[in-house]
Amino acid sequence: MKIVYSDDQRLHALRYEMSGGEPTPCFEKPSRADMVLEQVIKRNLGEVLEPKEYSIEHVTKVHDSGYIAFLENCWPAWEAEFGAANDATPEAFPMHDFRHKVPAHIKGQLGYYSFDLAVGLSAGSWQAIKSSANVALSGADIIASGERTAFSLCRPPGHHASAEQMGGYCYVNNVAVAAQHLRDKGYKKVAILDVDYHHGNGTQSIFYNRDDVFVASIHGDPDYEYPYFSGYGDETGEGAGLGCNLNIPLTLHTTDWVVYKEALQRCIAAIKEFDCDVLLISLGLDTFENDPISSFKLKSENFTEMGKLIESMQLSTLFVFEGGYAVEDLGVNTANVLLGFQESMA
Amino acid sequence: MKIVYSDDQRLHALRYEMSGGEPTPCFEKPSRADMVLEQVIKRNLGEVLEPKEYSIEHVTKVHDSGYIAFLENCWPAWEAEFGAANDATPEAFPMHDFRHKVPAHIKGQLGYYSFDLAVGLSAGSWQAIKSSANVALSGADIIASGERTAFSLCRPPGHHASAEQMGGYCYVNNVAVAAQHLRDKGYKKVAILDVDYHHGNGTQSIFYNRDDVFVASIHGDPDYEYPYFSGYGDETGEGAGLGCNLNIPLTLHTTDWVVYKEALQRCIAAIKEFDCDVLLISLGLDTFENDPISSFKLKSENFTEMGKLIESMQLSTLFVFEGGYAVEDLGVNTANVLLGFQESMA
Repeated sequence: MKIVYSDDQRLHALRYEMSGGEPTPCFEKPSRADMVLEQVIKRNLGEVLEPKEYSIEHVTKVHDSGYIAFLENCWPAWEAEFGAANDATPEAFPMHDFRHKVPAHIKGQLGYYSFDLAVGLSAGSWQAIKSSANVALSGADIIASGERTAFSLCRPPGHHASAEQMGGYCYVNNVAVAAQHLRDKGYKKVAILDVDYHHGNGTQSIFYNRDDVFVASIHGDPDYEYPYFSGYGDETGEGAGLGCNLNIPLTLHTTDWVVYKEALQRCIAAIKEFDCDVLLISLGLDTFENDPISSFKLKSENFTEMGKLIESMQLSTLFVFEGGYAVEDLGVNTANVLLGFQESMA
Repeated sequence: MKIVYSDDQRLHALRYEMSGGEPTPCFEKPSRADMVLEQVIKRNLGEVLEPKEYSIEHVTKVHDSGYIAFLENCWPAWEAEFGAANDATPEAFPMHDFRHKVPAHIKGQLGYYSFDLAVGLSAGSWQAIKSSANVALSGADIIASGERTAFSLCRPPGHHASAEQMGGYCYVNNVAVAAQHLRDKGYKKVAILDVDYHHGNGTQSIFYNRDDVFVASIHGDPDYEYPYFSGYGDETGEGAGLGCNLNIPLTLHTTDWVVYKEALQRCIAAIKEFDCDVLLISLGLDTFENDPISSFKLKSENFTEMGKLIESMQLSTLFVFEGGYAVEDLGVNTANVLLGFQESMA
């Protein structure tokens, strides 16, 4: 399978994130993608390609244009007022009863356009964010050109980003941008399966009212796990989208492959029933037993089986890289999913 | 005038707050109240009294009971999971389109019940928060007993706290609790005048739909200043409360006493028109020219004139301490307002 990757994505590198009440070195760092790239090359997954350039209109089809302008302009505004010593990070967020007015000051905008402390912006962030979206779009075009599968090695990840909010290391929702692009290329029904350990709240939010994109997600129970405010089992879509959103929250600490596989089979059955033309996978590897910030118990060999099960749907399938933080094993586990899929193709 | 103060308020002392992208020593610290107490004693303002104890039902009349239970139970839950090395602080907040469901995990609850990084909870916080509310309630009872004025030297402050969210160093909205208590004591119409540099978003939110409590606030323009998402001039109340909320946002950096006094006179005229039975002042002193986190240009002698102007309304008046961070001058400026008021009483 073809792999799309850009070194420009390395330009996004923050100083720290807040965790457990103190500044902590970032879990989401450039070396994550390095580890994955190294393994997919070592195991001969396929050719590695540079992304093409796409206009920003491909992104604003699923994102608020004011939000995207903010992502581009935040760092210069922050640096002008506060200098370059610290990343631009949010400090004050809207209250529950706020009016949806965007403040003029950059600190107010940072709060408006984000929902946690795992995001910030520094000098190279915008270029990396754009590049990550281009990696996703290029993968979508490989599928549209007739390939059965492709892997968009995106970084920063995307599935937590909603139409107008960054959070959970995510800025532009790469898989949503790619899904919309495939819709625009003529695919009538698109399914997204999110196997990241954390609920893909942004993807859910973007497509929540639509019946042309089915979103299924398996993740840690949000009552006890980030992102806390989204991902519950009774969130099934709204309006035209009612019935087009499937959440399977699983119990922390006790979820192993036996439990996970059953949830995955439920998702596969629902996607088959939706009868889509193309499939996108939000490929997070933080369900791994040794992931430093997660609590599921999947082993490396389980990821091979995951790839086989995904292949069993017999759909054109774009893999889009999301989370996963156990650096050393991260590359192995990613390659296992992709090779599990590829080697099953008859 | 009688002053109410409790040493228990010193039990709330956090390690740091986030400011400009990095951990910073807290501006809101126990020594603030020490400085004020020292000056009001030195200048013979009046007798200093301990607060009485009040049941928590006095607080839950204006706050969500789940939120108050969270304030009480957060620290033990945090300490059990993360230890006592760091304050309990929020990291992940609700998205704009979240459902109003409170997560089970303490980290989810911290995000649900707060809106910025200037709040945290540690071992002594709850006792200090309760004590601060008792200081406000005791001041209200001094007014109810027939005294013309009193000063509740509260800490932590309260005016940013809404019915279910902490923020801006505030947990329980002391002035709102005192205002409700005066309503329950038989005062039919209550006015609150907030002269803190920052908009009293919590007080506004609590009374926004009510016509028995008028709220007026003069503050830095929220388009450019914390709390960013509340305090605009067109927020005038809703439902029965329409017309009972007056915001006067003023320009940062250029607001001196000439500008400020005109805004104050507008508030005084509006409060006279509302024809209330009793007045509460949210007394923040961060409009001072040397305040470290604010941008107005009031001088120490202006605070004396502020006290005189407030007295000119000829109302029973409870002063409730809010913000102000220029430690050394803070005590002088507070005493100036109170003595300006007291010495004008004929």
